[in-house]
Amino acid sequence: MSALGDQSQEEPMAAQPQPQDRPISNIVIVIAMQTEALPVVNRFQLTEDPQSPFPQGVPWVRYHGTYKDLNISLIWPGKDPALGVDSVGTISSALVTYAAIQALQPDLIINAGTAGGFKAKGASVGDIFIISDCAFHDRRIPIPVFDLYGVGLRKAFETPNLVKELNLKVAKLSTGDSLDMTQQDESSIIANDATVKDMEGAAIAYVTELLKVPAIFVKAVTDIIDGDKPTAEEFLQNLAAVTAALDLAVEQVINFINGKYVSEL
Amino acid sequence: MSALGDQSQEEPMAAQPQPQDRPISNIVIVIAMQTEALPVVNRFQLTEDPQSPFPQGVPWVRYHGTYKDLNISLIWPGKDPALGVDSVGTISSALVTYAAIQALQPDLIINAGTAGGFKAKGASVGDIFIISDCAFHDRRIPIPVFDLYGVGLRKAFETPNLVKELNLKVAKLSTGDSLDMTQQDESSIIANDATVKDMEGAAIAYVTELLKVPAIFVKAVTDIIDGDKPTAEEFLQNLAAVTAALDLAVEQVINFINGKYVSEL
Repeated sequence: MSALGDQSQEEPMAAQPQPQDRPISNIVIVIAMQTEALPVVNRFQLTEDPQSPFPQGVPWVRYHGTYKDLNISLIWPGKDPALGVDSVGTISSALVTYAAIQALQPDLIINAGTAGGFKAKGASVGDIFIISDCAFHDRRIPIPVFDLYGVGLRKAFETPNLVKELNLKVAKLSTGDSLDMTQQDESSIIANDATVKDMEGAAIAYVTELLKVPAIFVKAVTDIIDGDKPTAEEFLQNLAAVTAALDLAVEQVINFINGKYVSEL
Repeated sequence: MSALGDQSQEEPMAAQPQPQDRPISNIVIVIAMQTEALPVVNRFQLTEDPQSPFPQGVPWVRYHGTYKDLNISLIWPGKDPALGVDSVGTISSALVTYAAIQALQPDLIINAGTAGGFKAKGASVGDIFIISDCAFHDRRIPIPVFDLYGVGLRKAFETPNLVKELNLKVAKLSTGDSLDMTQQDESSIIANDATVKDMEGAAIAYVTELLKVPAIFVKAVTDIIDGDKPTAEEFLQNLAAVTAALDLAVEQVINFINGKYVSEL
């Protein structure tokens, strides 16, 4: 059946994009929520781009500035034009990542954001993780090979030196478009061996792999999914404090990146 | 809390894009699976664009041709570069719709594809529906206003004359990234009052609303979700036959559109 088609792997993706022959100079940081984005904007004294690189109608916002040797763009998907809430989730984050890569040709993408954590896998509120692997937990397609496409397991760009120098924890991430978690989601998250759960990471990994831009993921834990507090309540309670920790971690990562080649991360 | 931010509706989206002062001339048809796309490609004698309008690395394919007074592009998201299966689902379809609108500036988007149907809502295998409303059933965000963002209810472009002339059934569509359906999905689908369930429609509606391009949705039922056959098996069994019905419906729709203004549909 041609829908299932040619299941050979004729053109396997390079696991890691090719290193460049100059230090990293152009970085795009993708952050889904305004509360998460503004501390980073302020820390690096970024300013909103008066001429949006994005088409008319989209709510996507670029904050831009230079910091040390780096040209930094922070892209926030903005508020939903009809509802006024942050444009969270996989579709918006995939779209802004695609559009930002097309418009800005970054050397490196950093996706920073909050996440739920599993205490059974060692996560605590306020923990910062660098992600080794991303996958989806809400794309179940029980047809051979399509099942693997749905899970969409991808390695993040490997940054062994960054992780060692900054003494950061490394974990696997599972992504889905819901803040809550069904039994089926939980089974998939366990199958993905994930310590943290977010709503954007694997979608950004999909786009950056297609376009061959190295991507790293910095996730801060706002709520314990296998704890006794309701996720939405704990998430909202901890969002401001954890966002401050995330902001500090992003600064450390940016300071480490400055002056280095992609291959040195 | 600023994440929840300003929930006012300062800039509500226009429900319907502005009509143009000339007949429709430039159409983009988005079809997720090769099996669904090739009959349409053959019927309109479209040919694969030798110079892809899309960036290097993406598997997206444009087939192009003229038919009567129409410039037709059929966009298929292509085979996943690593796994070789069709790039189905919301993320790929949102990305190709965005990229096709940017590159081709269509007057109208048509999303055609197969779908599951609910017999309790009157659907049978082989039925063709024009979609009145799209929403998601797998984006649960139980925080006020974010919950509505997750559901993402949008009206398709209204085509009362097309529906009447071609005597087509009209129904609501619910979209999710899984071929199967959990209890939670089912509750959301019922809340969405959906007769058909697919894996792309609401994502395409999201992008076309942002970019203010009118979009219509033609969905053909391959499997009965509330029937007694397993979805994946029934889907694969009926895919070829139902795709032929879909192809005929797309031809009727294109013939109706030819020579008309958007406002006449």
